[in-house]
Amino acid sequence: MINPTRKEEIIKIAGKLFKQKGYSAVTMRDLAQEMGIKAASLYNHINSKQEILELILIQIAQEFTSGMQNILISDNTNVEKLKSVVLLHVKLASENPDGMAVLNNDWMHLENKRGYYLQLRKQYEDNLKTIITKGIEHNEIKNMNPDVVMFSLLSTLRYLYVWIPKKEDIDINNLTSQLVEVLIGGINK
Amino acid sequence: MINPTRKEEIIKIAGKLFKQKGYSAVTMRDLAQEMGIKAASLYNHINSKQEILELILIQIAQEFTSGMQNILISDNTNVEKLKSVVLLHVKLASENPDGMAVLNNDWMHLENKRGYYLQLRKQYEDNLKTIITKGIEHNEIKNMNPDVVMFSLLSTLRYLYVWIPKKEDIDINNLTSQLVEVLIGGINK
Repeated sequence: MINPTRKEEIIKIAGKLFKQKGYSAVTMRDLAQEMGIKAASLYNHINSKQEILELILIQIAQEFTSGMQNILISDNTNVEKLKSVVLLHVKLASENPDGMAVLNNDWMHLENKRGYYLQLRKQYEDNLKTIITKGIEHNEIKNMNPDVVMFSLLSTLRYLYVWIPKKEDIDINNLTSQLVEVLIGGINK
Repeated sequence: MINPTRKEEIIKIAGKLFKQKGYSAVTMRDLAQEMGIKAASLYNHINSKQEILELILIQIAQEFTSGMQNILISDNTNVEKLKSVVLLHVKLASENPDGMAVLNNDWMHLENKRGYYLQLRKQYEDNLKTIITKGIEHNEIKNMNPDVVMFSLLSTLRYLYVWIPKKEDIDINNLTSQLVEVLIGGINK
């Protein structure tokens, strides 16, 4: 019988190892060793290293997708929607910094699920760009190049995982409002 | 006799290969093949793969260091200095996107020069933080957490290499002013 807690533990420890050494350099043997079990017993829970990568990355991509759906159907202004996007990234990055590192560094090692992952990512970026473009049309956002705005927002938000674990004293809501202030309000007086 | 042009060509092609496959996966044989020469003749110009990595990364780090020095000694306001920092990143990323990718992805593979590289990077970040902190003191910049401001600026600027090659039609000064507008002026009305 499959123990779901053990499977979750495998995924968690694999995420840590993938982050440290990169997906390509980690073997199922390394993973078993790290868990203090035999490599053969890993296969009671998981089929392959690739399956672990899929589980880590597709889960995160789906969390972003469903978070974005909730933001899109809300009645908020477009600037409020952008603030919710910042919160979504802070929340997911702080819940799973290892997974976010793997997402950033190793998504290209996805095999069968690569197309699906890229589709979700493209959809997410399209939705974000729509919020920015509508914000400009509705005069909430300055008339700027939406690609530059999106690039700037996403670069910062995608790098959060590098930064969050070092700043354990910062709470999520506080960090979100500081980021919103910097990213949306600008820094000069 | 060493031909400096050939050495530069080796560094350029190595940068492209390191970016594509990652430093660890590239062999001197791959590099020789890509250049259409024998592996043995590579060694007339270069001692090791590690030497190539050092040449790529230390050159960029020194360009950032000297660019920052020029910014620091100028008489400009702190906000103007931040704008010059944006221009410095756009300029270096557009001149050498492959090198910037290697910097981001493979700096940890530096061996002897790793400490020196980290020292230059730390110095750069300290100087940038000083500009932000002084800007706040002098009432040019809103009273914000300087770490969050620096993190947000550097995330976007360090990711530029991903973005610049796809946008060949954008000119440097135009991109710089758009980024300055977004990063410093903020996006909401």
